[in-house]
Amino acid sequence: MEYLEQIGRLAKEGAQKLRILPGGRKNEILESVAQELLLAQDEILTANEQDMEAARARGMSAGLLDRLALNPARIRSMADGLRQVAALEDPVGEVLWMKKRPNGLLIGQKRVPLGVVGIIYEARPNVTADAFGLCFKSGNAAVLKGGSDAIHSNRAIVTALQRALMKGGLGEGILQLIDSTDRQVTAEFMKMNDYLDVLIPRGGAGLIRTVVRESTVPVIETGTGNCHIYVDASADLSMALDIIDNAKTGRVGVCNACESMVIHEAVAQTFLPRLCDRLDAHHVEIRGDKKACEADRRIQPATEEDWGMEYLDYILSVKTVKSLDEAIAHINRYNTGHSEAIVTRDYGNAQRFLDEIDAAAVYVNASTRFTDGSEFGFGAEIGISTQKLHARGPMGLKELTTTKYVIYGNGQIRP
Amino acid sequence: MEYLEQIGRLAKEGAQKLRILPGGRKNEILESVAQELLLAQDEILTANEQDMEAARARGMSAGLLDRLALNPARIRSMADGLRQVAALEDPVGEVLWMKKRPNGLLIGQKRVPLGVVGIIYEARPNVTADAFGLCFKSGNAAVLKGGSDAIHSNRAIVTALQRALMKGGLGEGILQLIDSTDRQVTAEFMKMNDYLDVLIPRGGAGLIRTVVRESTVPVIETGTGNCHIYVDASADLSMALDIIDNAKTGRVGVCNACESMVIHEAVAQTFLPRLCDRLDAHHVEIRGDKKACEADRRIQPATEEDWGMEYLDYILSVKTVKSLDEAIAHINRYNTGHSEAIVTRDYGNAQRFLDEIDAAAVYVNASTRFTDGSEFGFGAEIGISTQKLHARGPMGLKELTTTKYVIYGNGQIRP
Repeated sequence: MEYLEQIGRLAKEGAQKLRILPGGRKNEILESVAQELLLAQDEILTANEQDMEAARARGMSAGLLDRLALNPARIRSMADGLRQVAALEDPVGEVLWMKKRPNGLLIGQKRVPLGVVGIIYEARPNVTADAFGLCFKSGNAAVLKGGSDAIHSNRAIVTALQRALMKGGLGEGILQLIDSTDRQVTAEFMKMNDYLDVLIPRGGAGLIRTVVRESTVPVIETGTGNCHIYVDASADLSMALDIIDNAKTGRVGVCNACESMVIHEAVAQTFLPRLCDRLDAHHVEIRGDKKACEADRRIQPATEEDWGMEYLDYILSVKTVKSLDEAIAHINRYNTGHSEAIVTRDYGNAQRFLDEIDAAAVYVNASTRFTDGSEFGFGAEIGISTQKLHARGPMGLKELTTTKYVIYGNGQIRP
Repeated sequence: MEYLEQIGRLAKEGAQKLRILPGGRKNEILESVAQELLLAQDEILTANEQDMEAARARGMSAGLLDRLALNPARIRSMADGLRQVAALEDPVGEVLWMKKRPNGLLIGQKRVPLGVVGIIYEARPNVTADAFGLCFKSGNAAVLKGGSDAIHSNRAIVTALQRALMKGGLGEGILQLIDSTDRQVTAEFMKMNDYLDVLIPRGGAGLIRTVVRESTVPVIETGTGNCHIYVDASADLSMALDIIDNAKTGRVGVCNACESMVIHEAVAQTFLPRLCDRLDAHHVEIRGDKKACEADRRIQPATEEDWGMEYLDYILSVKTVKSLDEAIAHINRYNTGHSEAIVTRDYGNAQRFLDEIDAAAVYVNASTRFTDGSEFGFGAEIGISTQKLHARGPMGLKELTTTKYVIYGNGQIRP
């Protein structure tokens, strides 16, 4: 694995340079990288066509082909993304607190880059530019391992980005692509503790599970969302309808979509027929427990398995409960720690739901679809963390940093 | 592994209760736990004697026997520790920021407990009470796996603590001990991702390496410190002497002790003989590179291996450098990311050292021995993190928490 060692060493050197690169200079370079990307449009599209042909020949599904495909508009959007990141505030250097200790030591906690960030993702070439932009702006060297299906596209994009970095006087360690489709290389990559400070998987549940299981490098788990909306007995039912419709059908393939609904039995009879009417328009299949099925015969019986499903499809499970306690217990048992919502008019129930539900984002009277870096005002996101360490919820630039204690003394020794 | 599953389920239930236990109630319970610990003194000492006898029979070293031994004063100190933790500010519930978004959503980031914290440690029974206190105060259920050599002591301590928790109306899930000396159980414990939110190893380098390698649960790496002190050409040499003496000989077995000294060659000839004189009093062995050996013949030749050593002993390595750049490169290559110091009168060199050294704590003109939760004003610490994710440097109560986004809406849906 001499190849990976070499990448690791270069990344460390790159991180050392980036650690002290002033924010203004980073922004200039991001701008020139965006320009270079636009200039390289033809070579990127040619490379992408190679990937597309190979994928079509292998019979890749239309959905995946669409994720893989690039066109001038998508390249422009990648360049725009880099410019937007340049416009965000630099997270590096912020002093979170600083205070004088009784012995005269001045101790401060300062935000600094993580160092080297590894990113493993699937066949979405736009992630290549996006991930680089976020890592670079936050002062981190990036080592990218994209899906094999996108290898030519990724190579062309990285070549263009690197060209701009070189022109800006920065070495190749700033951004590197693991240019291999060998699974053994990926396996070794996940064990590069001497070089990688963190590994972030971006993709489906299978990829994330593999990285969590195989990696010895610290991982930030992103992604899966079995998001619930609980309709309380006191809910404004029209509001509940709008919220569920939005969270279920706005975009079904995303992690903040609603997959499960929990409803107080006092309003199930009234609400569920209205819900069926509303969701019929989108051909949503509803699977419910016994009481739910009794409320409307368009609801099909759910199995135990349904409660834990992230469908990412036009399917919704419905669980009826006798109390808020039962709702909270059900959600805390089956959720994936992503986003959960209550629709209620009751002050106490709203407060209890906010306190007792264990998830990255907990909502009162709003759609779970808002769990997103730009909706939260972070400007951009590298993913949505569903773990509790380091970052939880949408991860922006700050979540790609760590801190360092800086201590100013004048000769203090410890008694 | 039905046994571990059961522990995991109970811990989850415990965490759910703790999540909403008010701070005042937590403090009352910590006080009653401290009292119960004192009342249980005889049973704890009897159990400890069993461990001590077995350890003596196995020929355990005097140093390790001392760590294992309990006596009335040490039990009192454990009880005092619990009271001190009770007196600290409750980290749970703090809202880090909250703001209204343009769509009217009020989004806030609130500090909440991690959930279930697993702690793996060696044969130091006092850690049992300390770790419980910190986890409990920060609202986390604790699952402890102590060293086999301390099994009887740990069992007695946990029994006493649990008795107080039961009297306080809290179930057994709040604090559990993995009551097994089977290595297979420990191996499975490190893979309990469904139940553990984080695993913290406390102990020597070997234990920490094992946990980092074997665990699939997110780990916070604590501990090893190959701490450097760089004596700049402009240093106040008397100050440098005091600082190195303090950091090297104050306590040699701790992670914030100085293990390596780096010195600008312009002052090596003057400084090193004075250093040898000073450290001779503590019989410190000094191992240096060629120039260091030339400066004083009491200095023995160092090997490449010395630069990376955490001696935890009366040994110091000395590396001479031609420039600050060389010093920074040497330290960033060999350090363990713990604590590093510069002694200098030069403003620019101080700033560069603070910016460019990659470590949890970077000092100007002070001893590395200050890297410690109580010295930093945190009141207590669960360990010193040398990784970059989640927590870096001394970890107090805040580092045992995560955050949750709470969102107050009035019917918002995402367009």
